[in-house]
Amino acid sequence: MPGSTFGELFRVTNFGESHGPAIGCVIDGCPPGLALSEADIQPELDRRRPGTSRHVTQRNEPDVVEILSGVYEGKTTGTPIALLIRNTDQRSKDYGNILDTFRPGHADYTYWRKYGIRDPRGGGRSSARLTAPTVAAAAVARKWLRERHGTTFVGWMSQLGELPIPFEGLEHIPNNPFFAANAGMIGQLEDYMDALRKAGDSCGARIEVIAQGVPVGLGEPLYDKLDADIAYAMMGINAVKGVEIGDGFGVVAQRGSHHGDELSPEGFRSNHAGGVLGGISTGQDLRVAIAIKPTSSIRTPKASIDRSVQPTTVETFGRHDPCVGIRATPIAEAMLALVLMDHALRHRAQCADVGLPVPSIPGSAP
Amino acid sequence: MPGSTFGELFRVTNFGESHGPAIGCVIDGCPPGLALSEADIQPELDRRRPGTSRHVTQRNEPDVVEILSGVYEGKTTGTPIALLIRNTDQRSKDYGNILDTFRPGHADYTYWRKYGIRDPRGGGRSSARLTAPTVAAAAVARKWLRERHGTTFVGWMSQLGELPIPFEGLEHIPNNPFFAANAGMIGQLEDYMDALRKAGDSCGARIEVIAQGVPVGLGEPLYDKLDADIAYAMMGINAVKGVEIGDGFGVVAQRGSHHGDELSPEGFRSNHAGGVLGGISTGQDLRVAIAIKPTSSIRTPKASIDRSVQPTTVETFGRHDPCVGIRATPIAEAMLALVLMDHALRHRAQCADVGLPVPSIPGSAP
Amino acid sequence: MPGSTFGELFRVTNFGESHGPAIGCVIDGCPPGLALSEADIQPELDRRRPGTSRHVTQRNEPDVVEILSGVYEGKTTGTPIALLIRNTDQRSKDYGNILDTFRPGHADYTYWRKYGIRDPRGGGRSSARLTAPTVAAAAVARKWLRERHGTTFVGWMSQLGELPIPFEGLEHIPNNPFFAANAGMIGQLEDYMDALRKAGDSCGARIEVIAQGVPVGLGEPLYDKLDADIAYAMMGINAVKGVEIGDGFGVVAQRGSHHGDELSPEGFRSNHAGGVLGGISTGQDLRVAIAIKPTSSIRTPKASIDRSVQPTTVETFGRHDPCVGIRATPIAEAMLALVLMDHALRHRAQCADVGLPVPSIPGSAP
Amino acid sequence: MPGSTFGELFRVTNFGESHGPAIGCVIDGCPPGLALSEADIQPELDRRRPGTSRHVTQRNEPDVVEILSGVYEGKTTGTPIALLIRNTDQRSKDYGNILDTFRPGHADYTYWRKYGIRDPRGGGRSSARLTAPTVAAAAVARKWLRERHGTTFVGWMSQLGELPIPFEGLEHIPNNPFFAANAGMIGQLEDYMDALRKAGDSCGARIEVIAQGVPVGLGEPLYDKLDADIAYAMMGINAVKGVEIGDGFGVVAQRGSHHGDELSPEGFRSNHAGGVLGGISTGQDLRVAIAIKPTSSIRTPKASIDRSVQPTTVETFGRHDPCVGIRATPIAEAMLALVLMDHALRHRAQCADVGLPVPSIPGSAP
Repeated sequence: MPGSTFGELFRVTNFGESHGPAIGCVIDGCPPGLALSEADIQPELDRRRPGTSRHVTQRNEPDVVEILSGVYEGKTTGTPIALLIRNTDQRSKDYGNILDTFRPGHADYTYWRKYGIRDPRGGGRSSARLTAPTVAAAAVARKWLRERHGTTFVGWMSQLGELPIPFEGLEHIPNNPFFAANAGMIGQLEDYMDALRKAGDSCGARIEVIAQGVPVGLGEPLYDKLDADIAYAMMGINAVKGVEIGDGFGVVAQRGSHHGDELSPEGFRSNHAGGVLGGISTGQDLRVAIAIKPTSSIRTPKASIDRSVQPTTVETFGRHDPCVGIRATPIAEAMLALVLMDHALRHRAQCADVGLPVPSIPGSAP
Repeated sequence: MPGSTFGELFRVTNFGESHGPAIGCVIDGCPPGLALSEADIQPELDRRRPGTSRHVTQRNEPDVVEILSGVYEGKTTGTPIALLIRNTDQRSKDYGNILDTFRPGHADYTYWRKYGIRDPRGGGRSSARLTAPTVAAAAVARKWLRERHGTTFVGWMSQLGELPIPFEGLEHIPNNPFFAANAGMIGQLEDYMDALRKAGDSCGARIEVIAQGVPVGLGEPLYDKLDADIAYAMMGINAVKGVEIGDGFGVVAQRGSHHGDELSPEGFRSNHAGGVLGGISTGQDLRVAIAIKPTSSIRTPKASIDRSVQPTTVETFGRHDPCVGIRATPIAEAMLALVLMDHALRHRAQCADVGLPVPSIPGSAP
Repeated sequence: MPGSTFGELFRVTNFGESHGPAIGCVIDGCPPGLALSEADIQPELDRRRPGTSRHVTQRNEPDVVEILSGVYEGKTTGTPIALLIRNTDQRSKDYGNILDTFRPGHADYTYWRKYGIRDPRGGGRSSARLTAPTVAAAAVARKWLRERHGTTFVGWMSQLGELPIPFEGLEHIPNNPFFAANAGMIGQLEDYMDALRKAGDSCGARIEVIAQGVPVGLGEPLYDKLDADIAYAMMGINAVKGVEIGDGFGVVAQRGSHHGDELSPEGFRSNHAGGVLGGISTGQDLRVAIAIKPTSSIRTPKASIDRSVQPTTVETFGRHDPCVGIRATPIAEAMLALVLMDHALRHRAQCADVGLPVPSIPGSAP
Repeated sequence: MPGSTFGELFRVTNFGESHGPAIGCVIDGCPPGLALSEADIQPELDRRRPGTSRHVTQRNEPDVVEILSGVYEGKTTGTPIALLIRNTDQRSKDYGNILDTFRPGHADYTYWRKYGIRDPRGGGRSSARLTAPTVAAAAVARKWLRERHGTTFVGWMSQLGELPIPFEGLEHIPNNPFFAANAGMIGQLEDYMDALRKAGDSCGARIEVIAQGVPVGLGEPLYDKLDADIAYAMMGINAVKGVEIGDGFGVVAQRGSHHGDELSPEGFRSNHAGGVLGGISTGQDLRVAIAIKPTSSIRTPKASIDRSVQPTTVETFGRHDPCVGIRATPIAEAMLALVLMDHALRHRAQCADVGLPVPSIPGSAP
């Protein structure tokens, strides 16, 4: 309830600060019998890791994960899985100048007002570094969902600042540092980022995420709708300011005669809904999009106040992502996976008895 | 956990179906000593009520609320407040033709697949009618927040189908059936709706909601961020497909040098963030927007299947809202109020000790 | 979290006060497809009902239950089941003399100190009358557990005041107003109660409850052990001051060589543990015992204070149970059923995959 | 919900196995501003530590705690506090003979049946070693409660096997390895334990715990009564089979005229209730007692089965506590502290507004 635990039945409790000794999480509720080792988790951490291209923060964190519990002879035992990631490249002096001021657009001010105290080193708890344990936990969820339901997750950047990135194919995503589903625009994106970095500024991004092979019937009818929990998960990612399911804000100008996805014995004929009807998964692809704001840690000076509420000017040096959206794709995939994992277990609890007389017709339209 | 309870400390447990004997909720966690009677709740229900103009469903439900518990001699006692609303105008025969088919865009199919059974009368549990208890519960939260923190909530429709509705002033909102903050466009909106109804079709809408007088420091740092919980609440409203906080999807094309709200001893100089930084309220206005899809209950025939997975065609008669967005404004206000109420209590639990050495500087830029 | 909800996956949210308009509960999480009507619930309420013999309170409450939601065409739909019981025989004037004083041994003082306000009519929220909705909810759980797992619950009084009641057979329990598993002692118990009532005093009782046909593997390993949750449930019943599982306090003087229940291919050879090892059910009978204090509502005058903290003397008239233990048996059965129901659903969520290579060997020793 | 988290607002999530690399916990919800370092926690771990006398297991674990997060410049920040304790003295070979058999009275069988898999090394997750993180977390709670409310906790052994240990004074407790509140009986207790160890057997114990300086008004009215949560906490300690509050099972034979604690302007005149009325703290001492069973890890051979359900005989060698009750006292204190801490925060959330017109009269009778 104090807000560092995600999920009800697949519970991930996150701890740590950006420049403390370690970050990590405890997963409580992972079903027993899943084959699991660090090798299942590390690749997802590596996708999210800083320092992998010149377009992201140059902080050098290997993000090596250690499983402390919950696995015996290579299999989960059903008891809590603790994951530990030691911080290794803290340079707290980089942040010296922000100890007594509040960076515009940052959580400095709100943490101070909420707690009366804040750990300013690298943003402390509000740092995007804390998404690493989430990604690690989600790697466990993803493995279980893939093995048991064939569910997979993939995301990509569809816009960088003003530049829309046309979708060409999922196969391009791993081949560029932007998670772009496009092969021909990479040079243009790199030039854009180089110019931005030179200007000491930052930009926003738009990320799309989909889940494929989603079980039908996930989500609760009233408050814990599947899309509600997805919105919660996505808006909880650092810097996210908007979330869309299916056609998203496009529905405002649509007609009901167009929007409602028709059914046929072969499956749904379209997927405007994005895979959720009445808060419950249809079995089609889950389609989610998020808007990520430009990071506030920029070199451009901005007006602010200090702890005595005196006017001051803040410039942020140190190592920062000029577009936090670049590393957001694996994080968004992770959040979506955690939501589905939790609801998959909830569904078993509630509806394990349900036996339907007819075959299902899920499936996304092409 | 099965999804009919909203909140952690101000818990609202909702029950009922559209055409069952009654709907209602139990509020657990309301602080003692709040003056409360049905007269505090009924006006909010009346704002949401069906049948108040020709542009919404003609179902005639007085939605009279009865307080069953938790109030003694006109004050809350700290124990659960049960609210009961009897259904009076069920016409289940209107729905006879959908018993064995699945309306495109509706929850019919997903409920059937999830539970193996569904109450088809008026959409059963998936009906927007179930927002009435939420609105009733939020009336209690709104009163407490207003009395204790001076917090108020107001929403308006900013777009109806293709028609943007320019914001003119909050004072116009109560004077038209659309919750439009605009006086001059009402005739145009009425014509639009009349044409839509005649065409047997439906349309989407965009709703804005703000909270004013928000306490600083609400929201948890990692997963239960204030904006995450707002997104959860808003996406959980029937037919919502998108949620924005502050500049929302507009941030994608913004620069950090523009986006980060500067601080001064007099307060923030802008509110791109929408009143939340790092998941914690800044004290500025909370700014939220939602996208509402066109309802799927339309007269236009659409392809579907029946329970034997045979192709069929569905036309929906009965009494429906051609734009569910019209009645969504008080619901969105209610959801925002419930989120703030819960976090206000959470804040007291965790941070009651916090004593800051300096005055606060909250406040929204004009 | 404010304490009126029982369970995680089979959630019962209770509302009402002894002398308010109604009491009831909302069950969220009942699996769909269970045949259910008021007739499944009423008999359990009737067993708990006041006014059934001269040895219990003479308040005349029919305790008629109405199902408001969650059932369609005689089957549960998987959505919340709201149960309503109207209060009909409130005589608030009976309590006039306690409005400004605090009855020794009662919750009057603590409610006042906690909430700054209390509903004094009939004990308000602290009345044992609020166990009625719990019993009603448990009737649903009992039906599901019986149909799906063959689990049944039975309790009996094993001591009334100083009088131990030797166990003779379960068949005697329904034949006397004390839930005694004994046929020959009933006259002696009646005389005991008559003398007590004449003396204006009250007495305690000891109740045993068992569950038979318990699924193996229920309970969580660390904090939410099955026996921990049983202790929580039992100690939460009004007037309970002690809980035992299996041999209970008898284990203090036992040896390990005696206590550890041996296993054989035919099953366990004894049941000192009471059906739980390491917090997880063994499949044997669950054996629970509780101690119930003498009610504090007695005619004998006792020293107390009033709201101005001035000394006073309190005598309680009105209609009270001289031994609340007499009606506690169905309540204890109900609580045990709610715990098992919740854990049965939790088990499905977590361990539905578990396939063991060998048959089980549960079963209680005779 | 999967059972490794204790508390709602002061949440302790426990992880680890007896012979894995580490054990620990994450505390989420500790208020900010509490001075905290490892030195506040280590002494409580040392009281619980194995190997401190010849009467407990000779496993040599220094139980050194490391704070990984949530503390900045010596003060809690309001964010999660992760505590890590490395295991150093695992001798898994000691347990070789139990890999395929089920020790009578142990959780071996139930873990296997629940999860289909178990970590047999040292009892894995079911080991009492997992109480160490609980004790560490409680040290934080105890410090906060002591500083803010003056609340303190103390426990003692009141019976060892058949030997009652008369209470003489709290000052004796730290001076003997049994936590006995008695100076003269220590030699007799040591002889008793020596004989027991020689016999290869084990015995039970009875422990008393009290909290002093308890805030008035803690506990929820219906299900989350303070005593219910205490019973849950205590019964969740390994090997506990019975819990009593106040006079406990003694109430069965009491009269109401005797039991109800009278009030006077100077305070309560007795404390039969044990500091709780109607589930809410009175401000008097909380009085709790627990029964601890004899450990099942004994050298005496007992009948059992193996994983193929074939009969076998089990003798347990290795390092075990012949009376787990000896080390249970600090654990019981810890559990009581965690319950009070959680309810203290809950109380702030709900009742921070309550202002009573008159002074309180709490206090225990001598």
